[in-house]
Amino acid sequence: MGKVYLVGAGPGDVKLITLRGLELIQKADVIIYDFLVNKELLTFAKSDAEIIYVGKQASKHELPQNNINTLIASKAKENEIVVRLKGGDPFIFGRGGEEAQVLAENNIAFEIVPGITSAIAVPAYAGIPLTHRDFASTVAFITGHEDEKKSESAIRWDELATGPDTLVFLMGVKNLKTIKDRLIAGGRNPDTQACLIQWGTLPKQKVVTGKLREIDVVSKKAGIRPPAIILVGNVISLRSQLQWFELKPLFGKKIAVTRAPHQSLKLGELLTEKGAEVLYCPTIDIRPIKPNRRLTRAIDSIQGYSCIIFTSTNAVSLFFETLYAMGKDTRSLARIKMLPIGESRF
Amino acid sequence: MGKVYLVGAGPGDVKLITLRGLELIQKADVIIYDFLVNKELLTFAKSDAEIIYVGKQASKHELPQNNINTLIASKAKENEIVVRLKGGDPFIFGRGGEEAQVLAENNIAFEIVPGITSAIAVPAYAGIPLTHRDFASTVAFITGHEDEKKSESAIRWDELATGPDTLVFLMGVKNLKTIKDRLIAGGRNPDTQACLIQWGTLPKQKVVTGKLREIDVVSKKAGIRPPAIILVGNVISLRSQLQWFELKPLFGKKIAVTRAPHQSLKLGELLTEKGAEVLYCPTIDIRPIKPNRRLTRAIDSIQGYSCIIFTSTNAVSLFFETLYAMGKDTRSLARIKMLPIGESRF
Repeated sequence: MGKVYLVGAGPGDVKLITLRGLELIQKADVIIYDFLVNKELLTFAKSDAEIIYVGKQASKHELPQNNINTLIASKAKENEIVVRLKGGDPFIFGRGGEEAQVLAENNIAFEIVPGITSAIAVPAYAGIPLTHRDFASTVAFITGHEDEKKSESAIRWDELATGPDTLVFLMGVKNLKTIKDRLIAGGRNPDTQACLIQWGTLPKQKVVTGKLREIDVVSKKAGIRPPAIILVGNVISLRSQLQWFELKPLFGKKIAVTRAPHQSLKLGELLTEKGAEVLYCPTIDIRPIKPNRRLTRAIDSIQGYSCIIFTSTNAVSLFFETLYAMGKDTRSLARIKMLPIGESRF
Repeated sequence: MGKVYLVGAGPGDVKLITLRGLELIQKADVIIYDFLVNKELLTFAKSDAEIIYVGKQASKHELPQNNINTLIASKAKENEIVVRLKGGDPFIFGRGGEEAQVLAENNIAFEIVPGITSAIAVPAYAGIPLTHRDFASTVAFITGHEDEKKSESAIRWDELATGPDTLVFLMGVKNLKTIKDRLIAGGRNPDTQACLIQWGTLPKQKVVTGKLREIDVVSKKAGIRPPAIILVGNVISLRSQLQWFELKPLFGKKIAVTRAPHQSLKLGELLTEKGAEVLYCPTIDIRPIKPNRRLTRAIDSIQGYSCIIFTSTNAVSLFFETLYAMGKDTRSLARIKMLPIGESRF
């Protein structure tokens, strides 16, 4: 019997995963993940890990929640480390509570690994602090799509409209007009600032702002679609001063990196740091010649050489891989000079 | 002119830092940190990084906020990478908004690196999801200590008492009775579940629960003091089923690891994984003999030996360090057998 880790994958930006989350992805025998999880995180999994997509796009559930619960429980019975990887935080509108309950009922051990919730990080990437001494002492998170099976709204709109200073709705794009109408009917000033942020924390992040009274029209005109969060509150005015992510020099640019896969990461990192969306499109692929009798013959009689000149990092890797594969090590290079040529770039 | 990164250090558990946060701590020239930041994170800093404590314990500000703002700005003018490391998330009651504004006013570039907020992670470590289909569609975060300079409360207590399903107060222990009174006066059912969690996500985590009507008495009796968060809402009832952190086999145990510093981490990790609080108390310290003429003489005439037996990992490290320091490499070990002895343990 294994253990299940309910892990928050964070809001989108791959580097917003926690150390604990990454460590578990690397150790997992099985990873069960959702639509909003950044797929790049899956590249850290073991090569023989079983990776299962149970993605949920708003209202388009690939696998009903009950089946997901059963799947997690059954995988835990057959594997040691099962990671249930969820967008954002598992306990903020992630149904993580329900999944943990099913595990508890089945006596399956579990741990919760919190993730960075979009509700906080997405506004931060748009330059909006949810709280601020001069603007907001309270903030509320509200589900933007209620369980349709509920006969009446569990949300007390009037109190929410006037209680918390900042409101954050998750998964509410489709209900935007209803949300706006209910807030205004509940007493929220129609001139309050409102804002939608689509694909927040990613290079394709898109932000629109307006007054609450018109936000549904503004959002529609700008073509905002899920996934997006809805913000209401005067902290939004700070964006004009605190915007930073979209001001990165390469923000909004898509850049293709054409180097061989194992050599493109460092360049990719530098471009990402500057705000670019990096597409890895290797146009060359460095492969060893197999079999390479000239190389193995040379290594067999390596003591006859007085100097080895390496003309690329690929040559260095390949030479030593072959050397070790032949059961030798660097001791067999005794008294041979080694001259690597060229500068290291990215 | 450098750049300032406002980095969230997370709620306490060191592994809840983000990859991005850790990467910046490792690169920083200057780190300016608060009381609630886990000091273990600072061990990842460069050895020559300048590390400045501006800690704030509730109401006991070591350095007034204005001075902190000035300090950050001045350090950014002299250094390339300045990390402002804050407990939890920088934009949730962290005054990060104000600090970012000062940077913007001084034309200093900045980035926000969200952190895991205690408001979410601390309840999660106590087995309490803040939202749940059957219990809570809304959650609000509220500052537990308002700016004392404000003439009247900016918190609309009546609406908050009855609006959001789950309430989370940060930094509110000292005002607990006032908070309770205002919520009940505002219409919250006095029988609602309430909970305090002290030092959440750390091995010394302490949780007390009770009904809202009596929570201040219960908390006082249990000796709860800051730092702690206050929770109100019926999601707390899930704790009886979903508790996990405090059930780890070594939870609440303090274990001293006496191995030499560089060898104690792996054992420490295993103990932490099981819930223990690990104290690193090395009772031995492995140091090289300096100068070690017998070793250097042996290496000088190494080709006279046919076999090297290594009796510990320390011996392996020391031998090769000395070999390289003498300008040699493994090529000089040509035709010598190497026999490492012993099993690897932790």
